[in-house]
Amino acid sequence: MDEFGLIDTFVSQFDVAPPPRGPGDDCAVLPKQGPSCVTTDALVEGVHFTRGTFSMPDVGHKALAVNLSDLAAMGARPAWFTVALGLPGWATARDVKKLGGGMARLAKLHRVELIGGNVTRADQLSLTLTLSGALEGPPLLRSGAKPGDALYLSGPVGDAALGLSLLGTNSGASSPLVDAQRRPVPHVAFGRFARRHCSAGIDVSDGLAQDLGHLCRASGVAAELDSAALPMSEALLDAAGSRKAAQPYALRGGEDYVLLVAVRDPPAFERALTRAGFEAWRIGTLRKGSGVNLDGVRLTGRLGFTHR
Amino acid sequence: MDEFGLIDTFVSQFDVAPPPRGPGDDCAVLPKQGPSCVTTDALVEGVHFTRGTFSMPDVGHKALAVNLSDLAAMGARPAWFTVALGLPGWATARDVKKLGGGMARLAKLHRVELIGGNVTRADQLSLTLTLSGALEGPPLLRSGAKPGDALYLSGPVGDAALGLSLLGTNSGASSPLVDAQRRPVPHVAFGRFARRHCSAGIDVSDGLAQDLGHLCRASGVAAELDSAALPMSEALLDAAGSRKAAQPYALRGGEDYVLLVAVRDPPAFERALTRAGFEAWRIGTLRKGSGVNLDGVRLTGRLGFTHR
Repeated sequence: MDEFGLIDTFVSQFDVAPPPRGPGDDCAVLPKQGPSCVTTDALVEGVHFTRGTFSMPDVGHKALAVNLSDLAAMGARPAWFTVALGLPGWATARDVKKLGGGMARLAKLHRVELIGGNVTRADQLSLTLTLSGALEGPPLLRSGAKPGDALYLSGPVGDAALGLSLLGTNSGASSPLVDAQRRPVPHVAFGRFARRHCSAGIDVSDGLAQDLGHLCRASGVAAELDSAALPMSEALLDAAGSRKAAQPYALRGGEDYVLLVAVRDPPAFERALTRAGFEAWRIGTLRKGSGVNLDGVRLTGRLGFTHR
Repeated sequence: MDEFGLIDTFVSQFDVAPPPRGPGDDCAVLPKQGPSCVTTDALVEGVHFTRGTFSMPDVGHKALAVNLSDLAAMGARPAWFTVALGLPGWATARDVKKLGGGMARLAKLHRVELIGGNVTRADQLSLTLTLSGALEGPPLLRSGAKPGDALYLSGPVGDAALGLSLLGTNSGASSPLVDAQRRPVPHVAFGRFARRHCSAGIDVSDGLAQDLGHLCRASGVAAELDSAALPMSEALLDAAGSRKAAQPYALRGGEDYVLLVAVRDPPAFERALTRAGFEAWRIGTLRKGSGVNLDGVRLTGRLGFTHR
């Protein structure tokens, strides 16, 4: 199948507008837009996934999910995206269809519109997405936190990292941990809530310690984390055997795609959380200074997870 | 050097806004925008270039140029872009700097702003760019042509394709043909002119015959090309030996990155061209029907150049 046939196979699974708004002309054409966010992120075979441990729908889902998580971190409402595919010789039209299928399901859920893309030959399967989201007010930035703010997480951390190690040993097994690795759930609705109620935010993709470090540097503050407060799933605690054994996954694991936010007025925030029906876990406090501390001890060295 | 160091090395060569507008937060933040165009295109080592025949600045230049050409084809004014880099183990910080250098020179020329990006490990060097341009009126579409319109090209065709074949034999030689292959010049200003004066347009990236076929299908018309009218450079004619030998490069070569436009009122268009200081070559006419004809003979088979 040629390039144009593969594009049709992929695109036909999405609800797309006819050109020039959707795919089919030299560019997509968009009407005027209010303030917006733009992000780009790639998933590469052998780096972010393997064919042995991820299905094609998993890959399609995750490529969109990790980008949605970046929009969530700004509090933006997903609006549109483009997809650039790198396809190896082994990729059949069926593979391309399945990739698109996994992505289209998540796209529909978030009402984010595929407006264009590109297909090229490549040695590794890769998906590079660029997403834009609408801002309904000032964005949630990494740089807005102040000393005295409380730190909250929008979900448990560590599952995806332990899930990754399970994939290496038993690729066929499905479990909550493996699902967290293959099918992360971006916290888009929480992000839109947090934009209105939090002073700063970031998504936890490189590990809690590293991403908290980014937030602290951008805001010019230090963080004090309470290890006993880190939210961990039952599945993680069971698989790791103890809270102590689970802690490295929670702290430095990565690919959690939960949101880490700073909050100026915790009682008001928690009342708003309850009203909105969200959950969040208070994990620490920001203070003057720099660096990330756990139970009063400065974290040093390689703080997180990196694909490089 | 880690991911963040490489990003800094790359980004530091561009005039970027501080976050959140520029790189550094989870997303770039854009103010409200008028109607716009979005396109995405990738350059992959071993598919679109080789390290033996392209310098790092060539690769950086071309990755941006091919995307600018898509904006040109819509008549848009380049506004912002993102860059996703796939970096193999061999790529040094110096390579990344040179890639960015070649790209930054072209970005400055067109005042297009780097707003964000991503770096990942990969086996092949790849650059996936997403560009947006502002529309100052209705876009130039592939679908706007009507029977009776004249066809014009904004520059000669065939140089880049013959340049590619020269690269295979003598990678060190610099010539206008090799330059056309390595350093294509996107016709951005002509595109903005054409948006106001033409009924349809497309950029010639896959070969004149194939891209004209796209325009004809989108507009529901047939094309009659005059082989004697195809603009060819002296360098192409010299290298090919004759006009006849050069014709396959001109017709099916690809990577020309000139614009092909349809024009309803040729005398008025040519007066406007002269006033604006542009050149264009009339190469044929559109009529009712379908397909692309050269000197009255239907072109069939593989009409153009494809990287797949």
